[in-house]
Formats: sequence, C-alpha cells, structure tokens
Amino acid sequence: MKANIPKTNQKRVVIIGGGFGGLKFARKLAKYDFQVVLLDKINYHQFQPLFYQVATAGLEPSAISFPFRKVFQKEENVVIRLTEVSSVNTKESFVVSDVGEIPYDYLVVSIGADTNFFGNEKIKSNSLPMKSISEALSIRNRILQNYEEALSVEDAEKQQALMNIVVVGGGPTGVEVAGTLAEMKKNILPKDFPELKFERMQIYLLEASPRLLSGLSQKSSDKSKEYLDKLGVNVRRDTRVKDYDGDKVSLEDGSLIHARTLIWAAGVIGNKLEGIPEDVLIRGNRIKVDRFNRMEGSANVFAIGDVCFMTEEKFPNGHPQVAQVAMQQGENLAHNLGRILKGGEMKCFSYKDLGSMATVGRNLAVVDFPFMKVQGFFAWLIWMFVHLMSIVGAKNRILIFINWAWNYITYDQSLRLIIRDPKKKK
Amino acid sequence: MKANIPKTNQKRVVIIGGGFGGLKFARKLAKYDFQVVLLDKINYHQFQPLFYQVATAGLEPSAISFPFRKVFQKEENVVIRLTEVSSVNTKESFVVSDVGEIPYDYLVVSIGADTNFFGNEKIKSNSLPMKSISEALSIRNRILQNYEEALSVEDAEKQQALMNIVVVGGGPTGVEVAGTLAEMKKNILPKDFPELKFERMQIYLLEASPRLLSGLSQKSSDKSKEYLDKLGVNVRRDTRVKDYDGDKVSLEDGSLIHARTLIWAAGVIGNKLEGIPEDVLIRGNRIKVDRFNRMEGSANVFAIGDVCFMTEEKFPNGHPQVAQVAMQQGENLAHNLGRILKGGEMKCFSYKDLGSMATVGRNLAVVDFPFMKVQGFFAWLIWMFVHLMSIVGAKNRILIFINWAWNYITYDQSLRLIIRDPKKKK
Repeated sequence: MKANIPKTNQKRVVIIGGGFGGLKFARKLAKYDFQVVLLDKINYHQFQPLFYQVATAGLEPSAISFPFRKVFQKEENVVIRLTEVSSVNTKESFVVSDVGEIPYDYLVVSIGADTNFFGNEKIKSNSLPMKSISEALSIRNRILQNYEEALSVEDAEKQQALMNIVVVGGGPTGVEVAGTLAEMKKNILPKDFPELKFERMQIYLLEASPRLLSGLSQKSSDKSKEYLDKLGVNVRRDTRVKDYDGDKVSLEDGSLIHARTLIWAAGVIGNKLEGIPEDVLIRGNRIKVDRFNRMEGSANVFAIGDVCFMTEEKFPNGHPQVAQVAMQQGENLAHNLGRILKGGEMKCFSYKDLGSMATVGRNLAVVDFPFMKVQGFFAWLIWMFVHLMSIVGAKNRILIFINWAWNYITYDQSLRLIIRDPKKKK
Repeated sequence: MKANIPKTNQKRVVIIGGGFGGLKFARKLAKYDFQVVLLDKINYHQFQPLFYQVATAGLEPSAISFPFRKVFQKEENVVIRLTEVSSVNTKESFVVSDVGEIPYDYLVVSIGADTNFFGNEKIKSNSLPMKSISEALSIRNRILQNYEEALSVEDAEKQQALMNIVVVGGGPTGVEVAGTLAEMKKNILPKDFPELKFERMQIYLLEASPRLLSGLSQKSSDKSKEYLDKLGVNVRRDTRVKDYDGDKVSLEDGSLIHARTLIWAAGVIGNKLEGIPEDVLIRGNRIKVDRFNRMEGSANVFAIGDVCFMTEEKFPNGHPQVAQVAMQQGENLAHNLGRILKGGEMKCFSYKDLGSMATVGRNLAVVDFPFMKVQGFFAWLIWMFVHLMSIVGAKNRILIFINWAWNYITYDQSLRLIIRDPKKKK
C-alpha cells in the first residue's frame, strides 16, 4: 500500500526521526525547493538535555517538547507523518511505514540512539532508562511512588531500599540527575514526607571508568566529583554493575546495594532499521558514513547524528554522540542537498566543538569551552543561558525561565504529581 | 493489618477524597487540634473546572493540579496516604485501604461523583469521559491522533468520522469543550493539518433536555446557544443518544452521526464505597445526610460534596452537584467538628449560591450572579478572573495566566503533544 503523501514536482527527501539532527536538517532543507517528508513516531521534538529535570519534578514534559506541526506551520513543502517506520528498501528507494510505503529521492536516517543495557535483560527489565519524555516521567512516578510506599513499611532495610536511588553512568545525564536528587533530598523530600528519616536515603552514582564526565576536561571531571561529594552523593568510580533484580544492585566487586530505583544512563546503542545493510554497521549499531554523511555504498541514503559513524582527522574514532554533532551534520547535509539541486558540489562535514557542560546542582556547574574552562556559579549561569536559548519556542522559554526562577527562590520543585490512570492498577 | 499511621492524643478524622470538598475541609480542620488523615488514590488535587482546557491542549495537567503534600507541608497534624479505600466498617469505625486498616473517630466521605453512562456499557467503553486529568489527557491524545490518522484515509466518509467530534451533555463542561473545539477548528487545526479539508469537520453538542446550561438562567442558556451557533457548533437539544459503537452515534430519533470521538459529559453518579449501608443511598448513589452533613443513622460518619444528598428549604430536591456546595459544606463541617471539640453545638449547613458561569469561547461567556446576569466579553473577563483566583498556588496562577495570555494573543494553543509511551503499541 502506498502512503497518502501529496505529489509534487519537487525531489522528495524523506527524514526518519525528528531529534536534534533530523529537526535541524528539516528546518534548513525546507528553505530549498524540495518536498521534505518528516517521519516520527511521536508528534513532537523532545529536548533531551533537560529530561533529567522532568524526571526530578522540576519541569513539565510540555516545557521541553515542541510539536512538529507547529515548527513547520509556515513551511508548505514540509509533510509530516506520525508513523513508525518498519523498514527501508534502499535498492528501490522507499521506506515502509505503518501509513504505507513512501518512495524517496533522498533518505536521511536520523533515528538516534537508545539506552544500551549491554545485553543484560534483567537490568533492562528492572531499571529505569531516560531516553524519552515518557521514560523521564516514569522515573518521576517511580520515585514519588516509592516514598509513598515507604510510609507503610516498618522494616528499616526495606524502607531504605525504597528510599535509596542508584544512578548508573557518570556522563552528563548521570551527574545531573544525581546532583538534582541530592538537592531534592536536602530541600524537598523531608518537608513532603516528615514521617520518613532521610538520613537513611542514599544516592549512589556508579561509573565504570576511572572518571566522571569523560567527554570533558580533567579539571571539570574533578570539580564535578567535588560538587557531588559536597552534595552527599556516593560517587563510586571504577565500579561496574553486574546485575539488578529490582531490589538489590550487585556490583562486580561482590558488594550489594539495596535500592528499588536504578536509573540507567550508562551508554547508548544506535537504533536499528531493517533494510540498512548489516555490513555498514559498526559496533554500537552505528551506520558508517563518508564525510558527506552518505551511507557507505549508497548514493542517496544519508545518516546523521547519534546513529551515524564518521571519522575525520581530529576524530579517528568517530564523533561523540552529542546534540552538537547531530545539529551540525543536519545543517551541513541540508546545504549539501541544496548544492546538488543547483548542480554544485557537496562540502565535507567538519565538526566544530563548541564545548561541553554539565550542571551538578544549585549554583554548581562545569563548562568546557574550547577557549576557556569555567566551574561553579558562573558556569552554572552559562549552563542556564545556553540551555534556555537552545529551547525551541519563545513560550517554552518563558515558562522554563519562570519555573527555574521559582524553584531557585523557593528551593522547591512543585511538580510532584504522579500522573497515571488511577483506574488502572499499579 | 493495621496501617502505619502515627499515634497522637488527638481525635482522628479520616477523610476519603481530596476533591473540592475534602480539600477545603482538611485545610480548615487542620487549624483545630485534630489528627487529620487524608486518603486519596492520586497524590494531587485536581481543578476540575479547567479539565476541558487540558483536553483541548490549552493547559498542562500540572497547571491545574496541586500535590497534597505541598498543600499541607506546614501542617504537622495532617497525615497523607496515597491509597485506595476498599471499604469502611461503620460499626467498628475503621476504613480498609490498601495500606491497611485505619481506625477513625470521625469519618468524612468526600469521594465525589464519576461519569454516569446510565448503564450503557457500549457507550461507556467507546466514549471519552472527562472526570479526571488522565481522562482529559486521553481526550487530547485521541483527537490529535485522529487527525494524524485522517491524513492516511482517502475515503471521504471515513475521514469525516475521524474529524467529527460529538459532545454529549449541555452543561458547563459540554458547552465549554464544544466552544473550545470550535475555536480550534477555526484557528489551529487547519494550520497544523493543511492537507485536510476542515469544512468536513463537524462539532455536535447534544443535550437531552430542551435547554443548555440548565443550572443557569434562561438568558444565559439562550446566549450560550447563540454563541455556539455563531462558532459553528451543531447544537441539538431534545436529543438523546441511544448507542455508540466507536464509529456511529445512534440517536433516539433514528438518525446517525459518524464520529470516532464522542466526549461524554451527560451526567454524574456518586462513587460507591463498600460498607455504606444501601438504605442511606438515594438515586445517583448519593448518601443521605442531615443538615450537619451527618450520614443518616450515624453519629460519626459524614459525607460532603457531590456524593451527599441534603435537602434544605430552598433546595427540596438537594443541592446542585457543584464545587461551591462541596467547598461550603467542607468548611461548615470543619468548624462544626471544631465546635464539638470545644463542647459546643453544631450549626446547620445552608448553601449560599454565589452564582454560576460558563465560557463558550474567545471573549464569550455567561455569568449568573445572584444580583446580576452578564454575558459576552465582560462575563468572559469575570470568568477568567474567578477561575484564576480559585487556582491553588501562586506559581500555577502565574503559569496559567501566561498560557491564557499567550494563547489569546497568538490564537494558538501550543500543547498539541500526544504523550504516551511510544514503545507501547497504540
């Protein structure tokens, strides 16, 4: 069955996935004379860097989500379909989706990456990942629900397991969520649950490698450790999780941590798409592309962002899987297709590292710019400014700013709602 | 099993349900020397009058929800349990909940009312009620999802069924949701879905009685009809729905309306609680109470709000099931228990009608005060002011105000997100 997509005289570019890379690409490409077909299984763009604030009741999902139809309301050459793509036929140039087959002239695969559980099914089914807004909301619900349950538990060990939180993975996500939880433990939870003893609650941040924030400088890594120590987070480096049964976290050194909440932010693996030849995939399911983001061995299939793997002189092992790479690739590719349209030559992609940052808690952040490194309060201001400016939509920006200011002044995140259908059983 | 509730020397008042009545009662009672135990199956108070704005993507759930633990953060004598009450033993004075048995000195039943489908299971399983925030979100998801699906449907009749929306029940909820949908049809949907022909979309408001807003004055009822006509809503009075299979609405006059969305706001029925004697229940599951809100035949069980039935001189058929009655009863009962504590006498409840109102759309509302009736733009300003002031929490008030101002200026509700777990199948 053919999908019902308007027919035009333009060349059709089909984009699978509206994350940072896909969205940037689509916005830039819309300025050229192409028919742009954006396919996604959700109807909004999600601002991933702030998922952790949704998980910790600081922001509402809507504040960091932006409906695609709103983004492209004024672009007549953009067609949006809310659909799941099941496979692609690269020989005959069409994708198969649940709204039907969609032929393309060019295909851009920007399907991103998902949480990597490194094959451990038990960890997968018992821990909480945070790679989507729904997952972030599940974390919030689980944590709040656990404290409610802890009120009815008299056994001290069981109560502690309900109160403890283990975060696995010392990248920016892990650091940020652990830091925010420590702030909640200090400022909010004891007020909400005066019947519980919060000395019992422990927050662990477990990192397999010898350092936190491995993408950042040594200085920033050290400082983030110092900040987390100060906030009372139990940071354990060189620590690997062997297993998790939903109640006990087993570490490789044989020790155990009792915790009913384990947030898994330990790695990503590229999403797979049927029809992409196995031989272009490298470890982590990344699609090998040339300097034009063209899939190895293909003329009209491209991949950008977390799901692609490109090497350049300065990055012999590929680029880091971060938003900046995806956005820059999206922009470069859009202009390259524009150049082809006009009979020109494509330009090689070259990653320009604008810097990395992570916030640890109130007034605490680390920022690595190529030209300087900052830590502490000033870094925290930079972090807020950069994130606020990256948010799509003026209204979202205002609402986030008010939320942040409010939470900062009152020492309080107010969104402690467990939203689920109360008619369904837990 | 006994629930784990702190033991104090105070008399214990157990409240089941933190709606308008229960919340008001708990807040007032907390000022007296009682132990106040508030039980609810969700952890926040929901502001029901604005559910329709959640359903139509104008407000976020969090804007009209307020966590109980936040409300009572400073009240040391209030104990909150997130739990479902399965029954009550009025002879031995304890309630049975999923956190265990909770003995009480006084019990206040404020469990409210749920949607009444008048026994029609087919309508119940195919239509969308709007008596909770989750249900309001489901309506939003369904409507947005239907338009996405309509894009893939070529058959005109099927497409129309996906686009049409039928609202059943001409009370304030039905009028407000129909009016807002008409505004969306005019200002938003055609921009979001330029591929669809919105002339095809029909909004129906069906009311079984001869008039809309039967709780308001004839003038307000007529005006609301006039406003809805102007907005293009098909208002049909004296029209009863016989059946609904999820696709076709069968009316009693034999005619059919094709619609995949039916919002059911046609009536309420009291929630039932096992252990409340059947002989104190009247039609609609309301619990008969005396002028002190005391359950018939009981000394220490009270019922307030939508679930109770009290007559007074001016209300021989009981009070309307509205927030004002619940709140006034909650307040009166709290002071009455306070009076008993001090050895005083209880005072009879007497309902003071402060007025009713409904908004139909942009700049359009009807307001009946006891001392005057207003319609149109001025009524709309009053409506907004009253609702804004009724919202619990300063931050929520600010956020709602910004949302309203933004939507008003831009003619746009921006929260058109279908939030569900994309890993689950539709």
